[in-house]
Amino acid sequence: MTQPLRVAVTGAAGNIGYSLLFRLAAGDCYGPDQPIILQMLEIPPAMKAVEGVAMELDDAAFPLLHGIEFSDDPNVAFKDANQIFLVGSKPRSKGMERSDLIRENGPIFVGQGKAIQAVAASDVFVITVGNPCNTNCWIAMNNAPDVPNERFTAMTRLDENRAVAQLANKAGVQTTEVADMIIWGNHSATQFPDYKNATIGGTPAASRLDEAWLQGDFIKTIQQRGAQIIEARGASSAASAASAAVDHMRDAWHGTGDRMVSMAVPSRGNYGVPENTIFSFACRCTGRGGYEIVDGIEFDAFGRDKFATTLAELTEEASVVSDLV
Amino acid sequence: MTQPLRVAVTGAAGNIGYSLLFRLAAGDCYGPDQPIILQMLEIPPAMKAVEGVAMELDDAAFPLLHGIEFSDDPNVAFKDANQIFLVGSKPRSKGMERSDLIRENGPIFVGQGKAIQAVAASDVFVITVGNPCNTNCWIAMNNAPDVPNERFTAMTRLDENRAVAQLANKAGVQTTEVADMIIWGNHSATQFPDYKNATIGGTPAASRLDEAWLQGDFIKTIQQRGAQIIEARGASSAASAASAAVDHMRDAWHGTGDRMVSMAVPSRGNYGVPENTIFSFACRCTGRGGYEIVDGIEFDAFGRDKFATTLAELTEEASVVSDLV
Repeated sequence: MTQPLRVAVTGAAGNIGYSLLFRLAAGDCYGPDQPIILQMLEIPPAMKAVEGVAMELDDAAFPLLHGIEFSDDPNVAFKDANQIFLVGSKPRSKGMERSDLIRENGPIFVGQGKAIQAVAASDVFVITVGNPCNTNCWIAMNNAPDVPNERFTAMTRLDENRAVAQLANKAGVQTTEVADMIIWGNHSATQFPDYKNATIGGTPAASRLDEAWLQGDFIKTIQQRGAQIIEARGASSAASAASAAVDHMRDAWHGTGDRMVSMAVPSRGNYGVPENTIFSFACRCTGRGGYEIVDGIEFDAFGRDKFATTLAELTEEASVVSDLV
Repeated sequence: MTQPLRVAVTGAAGNIGYSLLFRLAAGDCYGPDQPIILQMLEIPPAMKAVEGVAMELDDAAFPLLHGIEFSDDPNVAFKDANQIFLVGSKPRSKGMERSDLIRENGPIFVGQGKAIQAVAASDVFVITVGNPCNTNCWIAMNNAPDVPNERFTAMTRLDENRAVAQLANKAGVQTTEVADMIIWGNHSATQFPDYKNATIGGTPAASRLDEAWLQGDFIKTIQQRGAQIIEARGASSAASAASAAVDHMRDAWHGTGDRMVSMAVPSRGNYGVPENTIFSFACRCTGRGGYEIVDGIEFDAFGRDKFATTLAELTEEASVVSDLV
C-alpha cells in the first residue's frame, strides 16, 4: 500500500476550503491510488465549524482518506505535511485599501512560513491561494529560509482557467482545444492574460478571434471575473477557486509533460523579473513538485507594457510588507 | 469520442447542488472518459444565483464538461436527460411537522415526474435526494407511469456512509474494511442501519464491537447525524450529501459487482414490503442503472421490529399525499 500523503489545508472551514477538501479526499488531485491524511488549520473561533467539516469528511467514507486532523496551531497542522494549501486569509472588508489588506494578512503568513520551516516534511510543496496570494507566498517563503524557495508557489490557475473558458466559448470549441493560455504576473487586476501565445485547436488564438475583443473585453473579463461572480451568486468564487487549486497541485504532482501551465513561482531572474519575486510564469511541471519556468516566450509592445505594469504592482506590494521578511 | 451524458440537477444553486455539480464535472461520477452536459433546474428567484454557478463551472474549464444549461422549467432542464439528480426541495422550517413538509414538497415532485415522462431520455435514471426523499421519489414515479418504476430511486447512501465511518472509527480500521452495511427503509429517523449483517475485515461487526453500543449509540448517531452536523457547522450537510449522491449514481452507472449498497428503490414485494413502496434495500448494481434487490438477508427480533417501524412510517407518509399520485 502506498504511504499516505499528508495534505494540510488552511482556512479549512471557509468556502474555498469546504469545496477543496472533498475534491482532495475523492482523489481528484493525487489520483485514485494515493491515500491522503488531511490536516486542517483554522482560527480559534472556527474550531467548532472545522469539527463539523471533519464530521462530514468522515461521513463521506472516502476510501482514500486515511486520516482527518484539525488544529488552530500551524505547528500541529503542518506537522510532516508534504503538500500545503494556504487558503485562509483575511478577506477585504468594505472601504479597505489593497495596502491595508496586505498589511492585515502579512503576519499570518509570517507565522505559517515559520511553522512550515519548523515542522513540515522535507519534500513540502506549497500553494498559496489566500489573497493577496503572490505577496502572502513571498512572506511565507522568506520566513522559511531553510526550505528551498521553489517549493513556494501561488495560484493564478483560476485566471488561466477563466481565460481558457472565455476563449473556448468565443471560438465555440471545448476547453480542451485551448493551450498555452498563460497568465503573467500578479493575481490581481493587473495580471496579464497573454492571449498572443495561446492557441485554439493548434492555431494562434489571435488569428482566430477578433484582436479588439482580445485586448479589450477578454482581458477585462478575466481581470474582473471575481466581482462578476459575487454579483451573480451573492458569494465569492469558491468551488472554481478550489478546482483551480486542485489543477495546480495535480499538475505539480503528476507533471504536465509538454503542456504549459500558469503558476506564480519565485523568479530566477527570468524575463528580467527580480530574483525571488513571486511572479506568474509559464511553467512545465516535471512531477513531485518539480517544475521549470519556460523561457523565450516573446511579447509585443502591448504585452511588454502589461508585463511591466503587473511587475511594478508586485514590487510595490513587497515594499508595504518589507519589514516582515 | 464518447457521446456526452446529459445530467440534470435540481436545486442547482443550493448547497448540496453547489457541491455536487463540481464533483460531477470533475468526472467523479461517470469516470474520466465520459463527457457530460449539465442541465440545471432552479426556481425563478434563484435564476441569478444559478447563472453564477454556471459561470463558476465555466471558470473551472473542466475537460469533461461539454455543456452547461439552466432553466426554471423542468421541461427544459430534463430534456433528453439520461441521469437526473432531484436535489431541490423545500426545507423544513421551524415548527413545521413532518407531514407539513411532505405536503409542501409533494406538488414539486408531481410536476417533475410529469416532466421526466414528457421529455427525459428513454434510458433516464433518477436519484431523489430532496427530503422526504422516499416519498418525493414515490410521487415522481407515480406521475411518470410510462417510465419503468425501477428507474426511480432515492438516497440512503449518506446514512450508509455515515454508518460505515462509525464502524470503522470504532474498530480503528479504514472504511474500506467495512462491507455490507445496509440501511433499510425510510431516509428518516426510523431508518434501520443493520449492523448485524455488516462485516469489518470480513468478520461480523457484531462479533467485533460491543452489541450495546451497536444497538444504542451507533444507531442513534446515524439517525441523528444530520442534526449534529448543523450544530457543529451552523449549516446542514452539503458536501457529504453530494458525495453520497455521487457514490449512489456512480455505482448504479458502473455496477458494484458482488458488493451490496443501500438504495431506496420501488419494492417488488421483497421482504413483505408492498409493491412500489420506495424502500431502502440491499442492492447489487449491474451497471447503466440496472440493479437487483438482494433477497434472503435475515433479521433477528430486534431487526424485524426496526424494519416494521420504518415501513409503517413510509405507509403513513404515502397516505398524506395519496391524492398526488
